[in-house]
Amino acid sequence: MKIGRETVPRTAICTSDEHTIVVRGHDLSRELIGKVSFLEHFFLLLTGALPTAGQAKVLDATLVAIAEHGLVPSVQAARMTFAAAPDAMQGAVAAGILGCGSVVLGSSETAGRLYAEIDAQVQQGASTRVAALAAMQAWRAAGRSIPGYGHPLHKERDERVGALFDVARGAGTDLRFVAIAETVESLMPEVLGKPLKLNVSGAIPAVLLGAGFPVQALRGVPILARTAGLIAHLYEEMQRPAGFALSYQATREMVYDGAVPEGFARP
Amino acid sequence: MKIGRETVPRTAICTSDEHTIVVRGHDLSRELIGKVSFLEHFFLLLTGALPTAGQAKVLDATLVAIAEHGLVPSVQAARMTFAAAPDAMQGAVAAGILGCGSVVLGSSETAGRLYAEIDAQVQQGASTRVAALAAMQAWRAAGRSIPGYGHPLHKERDERVGALFDVARGAGTDLRFVAIAETVESLMPEVLGKPLKLNVSGAIPAVLLGAGFPVQALRGVPILARTAGLIAHLYEEMQRPAGFALSYQATREMVYDGAVPEGFARP
Amino acid sequence: MKIGRETVPRTAICTSDEHTIVVRGHDLSRELIGKVSFLEHFFLLLTGALPTAGQAKVLDATLVAIAEHGLVPSVQAARMTFAAAPDAMQGAVAAGILGCGSVVLGSSETAGRLYAEIDAQVQQGASTRVAALAAMQAWRAAGRSIPGYGHPLHKERDERVGALFDVARGAGTDLRFVAIAETVESLMPEVLGKPLKLNVSGAIPAVLLGAGFPVQALRGVPILARTAGLIAHLYEEMQRPAGFALSYQATREMVYDGAVPEGFARP
Amino acid sequence: MKIGRETVPRTAICTSDEHTIVVRGHDLSRELIGKVSFLEHFFLLLTGALPTAGQAKVLDATLVAIAEHGLVPSVQAARMTFAAAPDAMQGAVAAGILGCGSVVLGSSETAGRLYAEIDAQVQQGASTRVAALAAMQAWRAAGRSIPGYGHPLHKERDERVGALFDVARGAGTDLRFVAIAETVESLMPEVLGKPLKLNVSGAIPAVLLGAGFPVQALRGVPILARTAGLIAHLYEEMQRPAGFALSYQATREMVYDGAVPEGFARP
Repeated sequence: MKIGRETVPRTAICTSDEHTIVVRGHDLSRELIGKVSFLEHFFLLLTGALPTAGQAKVLDATLVAIAEHGLVPSVQAARMTFAAAPDAMQGAVAAGILGCGSVVLGSSETAGRLYAEIDAQVQQGASTRVAALAAMQAWRAAGRSIPGYGHPLHKERDERVGALFDVARGAGTDLRFVAIAETVESLMPEVLGKPLKLNVSGAIPAVLLGAGFPVQALRGVPILARTAGLIAHLYEEMQRPAGFALSYQATREMVYDGAVPEGFARP
Repeated sequence: MKIGRETVPRTAICTSDEHTIVVRGHDLSRELIGKVSFLEHFFLLLTGALPTAGQAKVLDATLVAIAEHGLVPSVQAARMTFAAAPDAMQGAVAAGILGCGSVVLGSSETAGRLYAEIDAQVQQGASTRVAALAAMQAWRAAGRSIPGYGHPLHKERDERVGALFDVARGAGTDLRFVAIAETVESLMPEVLGKPLKLNVSGAIPAVLLGAGFPVQALRGVPILARTAGLIAHLYEEMQRPAGFALSYQATREMVYDGAVPEGFARP
Repeated sequence: MKIGRETVPRTAICTSDEHTIVVRGHDLSRELIGKVSFLEHFFLLLTGALPTAGQAKVLDATLVAIAEHGLVPSVQAARMTFAAAPDAMQGAVAAGILGCGSVVLGSSETAGRLYAEIDAQVQQGASTRVAALAAMQAWRAAGRSIPGYGHPLHKERDERVGALFDVARGAGTDLRFVAIAETVESLMPEVLGKPLKLNVSGAIPAVLLGAGFPVQALRGVPILARTAGLIAHLYEEMQRPAGFALSYQATREMVYDGAVPEGFARP
Repeated sequence: MKIGRETVPRTAICTSDEHTIVVRGHDLSRELIGKVSFLEHFFLLLTGALPTAGQAKVLDATLVAIAEHGLVPSVQAARMTFAAAPDAMQGAVAAGILGCGSVVLGSSETAGRLYAEIDAQVQQGASTRVAALAAMQAWRAAGRSIPGYGHPLHKERDERVGALFDVARGAGTDLRFVAIAETVESLMPEVLGKPLKLNVSGAIPAVLLGAGFPVQALRGVPILARTAGLIAHLYEEMQRPAGFALSYQATREMVYDGAVPEGFARP
């Protein structure tokens, strides 16, 4: 069935013949394997060009920053899934990735869209402060929360934020989105009445947009990073199962508040 | 509900307090962000130790080798899924990863298990040739195919194989699994009656096992690598949709050979 | 880590002790198994009450109407995934379900939200025509498309629409959302300049909302229905593989329009 | 790329033209919508024929029996995923389905394969007892556990087992797989040294195989049933969030037993 206008698939990422695989114009076996890092390869696949040393440094740092944060919900989902279906590691990784959504890890992307919106105004002559305030107020008026600020555990600025900003400064990539992110932070008390501090989901787009990473692909960053962490957790699960223990603990204080049949003693 | 013996979840990968995230004994913000590459971080998460330069080189090369091979079935599945559900990039990545199964990308893991089995015999004094022949015959007798050899497109040895072996030689990691993989290749005519050549799914465990990568975690390598490729394809899909064009083409020659009601003209 | 306000999980769907499983207040083994249909059980699980005969008839009809439509993109994704990972049927079903997104099958839910919005105005005294026109214009002004109308294949009203409306009329459930859906259809030329006809994604909420099905759970209807169709396709795939044939056909006319290295002959 | 022998996809499930959708030879809008139940439609999609009243009764009963069992691991995974990604209900359902694996819900399929193996011997003249004993001993010798017996919570025979067997007896479907399942149960003390009782995963294939349900499609039964339960849980999650509370509880007693940097106080 024809859906949409296009009937011929087109791609500019990869082609091959019997002998050669071509990735973004490069001969994979001769020019890339052993010559570029996985990180550089990812940037090449995504953007069509190899990163500069500074761009690679910043992207590496963001992936390291969010690959792992312990037994968070998505890791729990993956370990429970693997305990139930140990033959299919790919299924457990998929279950974990499905938690990279708008509330938890997708806020990197949403914060990036806010910064890009502010930057567009700045490029047209507005001051960062004025543009940030206008965008924040517009988002609030539309009922949207300001993503990338505050954390359930870290009440001060998450230490990863400073580490990422240091890397960006050292790498020599564009710092204008860092300035935007910090301006938004400084306006939090004025707009929200609460001094919410930058968290890692705000810091990631702040450094990545300045390193030429496309805003639309930002959600790919936590997805790729967490995949690495999930694989480590599933390897640990093979050796020291915790998936069913997590699910046992999860319901120890569970309250059932629905109806019961006559004679059934509420647990 | 209690399933299994464990009731308390244990982990050795990550912990944190209000200020500090600890990953495998390291302070994430002070010792890892900006100091190690994503690849080194992945190895640390998985094994508990940072890789040597040689180990990192080999792991980088394998991830680069299999991150991308064009519009293969799993990429098609991801792009079709994204065309239908563009709000959820994580869902499209998950759909693509779910195709890293026993037939296609999981064969790296299965080949690794074969090599490890042969290696165990060699460690006990058998010659590589004798141990390989015995293992191959046992697998055939049990109705299992020999994974990691032959390719629908590349009839000669896939060029990625030589590239990966060159990297391993240059990196100074253990080459004994490369020797095992090549011995298996040389025995193919004798065991299968066909001169099937090593493919990339055989080469990956051949170099990775020698670099200290755990055999049980091998399926994680194509999963992580392909995640990078999938993200690139989904970013391309945002800009130049091909998902529905792929599905349109896929059924142009479809044959429906079931029953039809009276009066229905078979398309 | 604490995220959100709640720390104790509560549920009213199911509890159990050593002998008895309680579902929505009923003893599963004594009152439900063999006494209610799967469809009635689904309605009970979802809403807390068993459906009337009329409600069950309408819900049955909608699930039958959209369970299957041939080798659509989500079925292709599932069959390709199963061909690559045949050990994990659950993974292939999951890949298919992930295509129940905002563009394709999720439009039932979106159309339901539009009808509910119009109904809220009607309940406050507006005429259906005025309320529908206002809602449609507001959606257009906000850049949202009107879901549930038009079809790439069926240019007239999809025959399933009439069949579903007939069932609703026969079942004696509330028809006011059917009236709303038809009013929206009649306003299409005025609002969009095109006489787009009701499709099955519009008809489903039109009959279901009148049968007491909750608007927020509407996306569950195509998900459940398609799961049945996906299982049938995967069983066919076991016996007559088509997954790899689909992916082969999909790229036969593929155009690679990226760069190539010197000497590489574009395929 | 061509993988496997087939290059043209074939299907016998569904076709359509501009006016009519044909499912298994029936006109969907005229012969199925409003005329058959969702359950009958599922059986038709899968097997090509509508079920008898007895077959439908048995299949309905099995789907009701396993649709729901409270906040089990797969439901927890789905609710955590939905809490993190509330825009994508399909992703949360997929995460839940991915837990229908070999250990938990897939055991219905494995038990079905054991019963079919025993039945094949009985068809060739062996007594049920002899055939069952031989198969059980062969499975044990091959290191496989006997699926469908024992339960972490229900030490006696799960009440759902008797309820399903009663339905099969009342429905008039073939009871020979019930006899096989009970014979296996009676041999448990002899083969395993433990009086493990039939659980619901054993009872399901025992009644379904006698109702003409194909053994290879058995894993589809828990997948379809649980999809209904998952949708109910996700609708509850929208109204009364529990996903993050589950994940909070899950790690309250978590033990981190890895290394820590100097000065870090173990939580």
